[in-house]
Amino acid sequence: MLDPSRAKDTIAAIATPPGDGGVGIIRISGPLSREIAASLFDAASPSFTDFQPYRLHYGLMHDRNGQRLDDVLTAYMPAPNSYTGEDVIEINCHGGRAILGAVLEEILSKGARLAERGEFTYRAFMNGRMDLSQAEAVAEMIHAPTKAAMHLAQVKMSGLLGEKIKELKLRLEHLRAQLVIAVDFPEDELECLSPEELVTVSSDVRSEIETMLSAMDRTRAWREGALVVLAGRVNAGKSSLMNSLLGRNRAIVTDQPGTTRDYLEESVNLDGLTIRLTDTAGIRETDDAIEAAGLEMGRELMEQADLILFITDASAPVDDEVLDAVRPLDKAKTLVVLNKADLPGFDLTNGEPLTDLGVEAQTVSAKTGTGIDTLCDRIRDRVLQGAGQPDPDELAPNARQASVLNSAMQELMDLEADAMGGIPYDLLSVRLETACDTLAGITGEITSNEILNSIFDSFCIGK
Amino acid sequence: MLDPSRAKDTIAAIATPPGDGGVGIIRISGPLSREIAASLFDAASPSFTDFQPYRLHYGLMHDRNGQRLDDVLTAYMPAPNSYTGEDVIEINCHGGRAILGAVLEEILSKGARLAERGEFTYRAFMNGRMDLSQAEAVAEMIHAPTKAAMHLAQVKMSGLLGEKIKELKLRLEHLRAQLVIAVDFPEDELECLSPEELVTVSSDVRSEIETMLSAMDRTRAWREGALVVLAGRVNAGKSSLMNSLLGRNRAIVTDQPGTTRDYLEESVNLDGLTIRLTDTAGIRETDDAIEAAGLEMGRELMEQADLILFITDASAPVDDEVLDAVRPLDKAKTLVVLNKADLPGFDLTNGEPLTDLGVEAQTVSAKTGTGIDTLCDRIRDRVLQGAGQPDPDELAPNARQASVLNSAMQELMDLEADAMGGIPYDLLSVRLETACDTLAGITGEITSNEILNSIFDSFCIGK
Repeated sequence: MLDPSRAKDTIAAIATPPGDGGVGIIRISGPLSREIAASLFDAASPSFTDFQPYRLHYGLMHDRNGQRLDDVLTAYMPAPNSYTGEDVIEINCHGGRAILGAVLEEILSKGARLAERGEFTYRAFMNGRMDLSQAEAVAEMIHAPTKAAMHLAQVKMSGLLGEKIKELKLRLEHLRAQLVIAVDFPEDELECLSPEELVTVSSDVRSEIETMLSAMDRTRAWREGALVVLAGRVNAGKSSLMNSLLGRNRAIVTDQPGTTRDYLEESVNLDGLTIRLTDTAGIRETDDAIEAAGLEMGRELMEQADLILFITDASAPVDDEVLDAVRPLDKAKTLVVLNKADLPGFDLTNGEPLTDLGVEAQTVSAKTGTGIDTLCDRIRDRVLQGAGQPDPDELAPNARQASVLNSAMQELMDLEADAMGGIPYDLLSVRLETACDTLAGITGEITSNEILNSIFDSFCIGK
Repeated sequence: MLDPSRAKDTIAAIATPPGDGGVGIIRISGPLSREIAASLFDAASPSFTDFQPYRLHYGLMHDRNGQRLDDVLTAYMPAPNSYTGEDVIEINCHGGRAILGAVLEEILSKGARLAERGEFTYRAFMNGRMDLSQAEAVAEMIHAPTKAAMHLAQVKMSGLLGEKIKELKLRLEHLRAQLVIAVDFPEDELECLSPEELVTVSSDVRSEIETMLSAMDRTRAWREGALVVLAGRVNAGKSSLMNSLLGRNRAIVTDQPGTTRDYLEESVNLDGLTIRLTDTAGIRETDDAIEAAGLEMGRELMEQADLILFITDASAPVDDEVLDAVRPLDKAKTLVVLNKADLPGFDLTNGEPLTDLGVEAQTVSAKTGTGIDTLCDRIRDRVLQGAGQPDPDELAPNARQASVLNSAMQELMDLEADAMGGIPYDLLSVRLETACDTLAGITGEITSNEILNSIFDSFCIGK
């Protein structure tokens, strides 16, 4: 819980991802940063007297008993020109858990406290180093599953969304100023600003907001990736198909294969689009052949899916069980995969009872690879539904920002209706003020502690 | 495969652990480092003209088309005063997979190649920045499971093992020089050096080697952690006990809970000692109550275990199945846990048939926590078998170094036998040379490409 009363504490945390790696970074921010680092650091250079701003100093971290901990590089970034706007020290250690844990422990023993989730970025926001939309974009950058998602976040991190919102607010404030004049000099009311002019400005602003909201929908698959659920009998070749898709498309820099107790999930990268391939009956299959042979499908997962790949063995006619399983599926998001094209019994007519149900089908052989490239293209097309690669400067709000924008839209629509309905200008002015205050929630000029907490709580510790 | 012919390539890799975090680092090393970084970096400061050595520069990384990738801090460390001894650039990005992947991709497109595992440290070794024992210690530091293990690695990373080996080699080389004099001036042979004197020096060296080898055994549990296997019936409370042990001892900085398909493993930190708690029947239990109710135990895991905790419900008398399961276990590494001390039926005599088999027992209630602290102490004592916390400057060789030390020991023992058996000094001199060359394998003065490859192949990419 981020608490303004603790805003002057010196905080510290491991800033790099958990795990073993070549390098790990510990970040300290706050008034004691420099003093704490100095008390634990022995510079290698005999000419070292003190940390020079923005300079790397090589040396040794020791613990409070003087025992060597690690060879490190330290950097001091004084307030206000640091990430948080406070005095910041960064310590580059070797990237092992024990090392980072031991160094962090010493720092905490010297008077820093462990940073809360997102507290470094929270301080950057509180100290005016970035607005709230930029702070949110930092987390979006970090968790971006693909380059396209990262670009969308980078645009917001650079401040363009905040600037856009400020510009829209300015237009509304200008409008409000005109309303105020009209109220103060009622004899000039209609000359100052007609209701039609007011509606024009308001609806222009709304249309820009609508563009942003539609960018959110249009870029959703790029930002969040898509969920593709594999369904069908085990012996239809789901595992082979999954492996075939993975083999061609596993990204160089990607998630570890993840399993849960209920299903198996792997991520693939199809030309920059992240697809989470999920096999509902993943693990259980291996333990209980009888259960797995059936068509148990995770209903909930099916509903969340952007696309269901229903895999069937088309080297034999489909039977009623398969037909019954496909019939209730949403055809618009189902693609039947007619597998085993390599077997002599394979025949397209075997799949006809399925395509007769109105679902599209794709022939493949998971074993030989026939049709897999085409299948990948179709998966991508079906998931994107015509949404191309986002523009380089597309402003795609996140869910919170979209909800703020929708509230502002509603306020402006009410304003327009009131204006045309002859409601007095002083009441319209109140509506405009509300719309501006709502928009200010995006940049964080006006926002509650609860909202801030819920935003920064989704950050990792160390950011 | 590390290939000396590619030693002049410029290499690049992500140096931080994989995953999402606040910060991620990309490292570039080699002649093109600076040029590549300059071509992708726009400094924020208008006064920036070029990278200043050891200075952090804030700015923007863009891709080859000029599209913004991320806000970064870059540092240039010129040869020879860098980690590798070459020109090094480090780029601190936001720590997301997509970001790091995208920045790395640009760097590779500009003429760097992806570093092999351990290649940065390999170059540091090849360029004389560290000896082989220090290079190995880097990996040991990173993978150290506890602070104690880290200290043992730090001692070696500081070069103390290499210095010790050089000192021992010097003594042997001095001995060899005396032998050569004795050979060249045979009339003075006995005056120069008696076989007894030779044996004294050699056995002094051997005794120092023996001290190191015994340090390896004594510190094993500290360096590698210990494997503790939980066995017993499911309803004996294995899961509750595991949770109880975890709840008290989960380290702040520790592994994510890990599962495999075959068993469940969690790490706990008992006063600086890492214990891997493993439940053989972990996942399967949940799927098949009948199988899990039995006493299926992973035999192989039992053999590897440092300690087997056999948990039994002592609120009822033990039955034959339990007795049959405990009977074949190695009593020296088994501890029976008499669980459910909170239940009215609990009675120490219920466990007597087990202690009668010659195994120690500990009473606990996993539910209320009674006896858990004592159990932790006993686990620790049993695993350590009297080996205390390592000394701050203890030299504990790794497995490869131990095998080199053992070869050198054997050579010295043969030398001593030969000397006392009256073998001519020129032949003794050959043995001494072999012993010295063997020892040189520790610091890497003499070593083969195969050995280097096998050492650096155990590193992570980016180190």
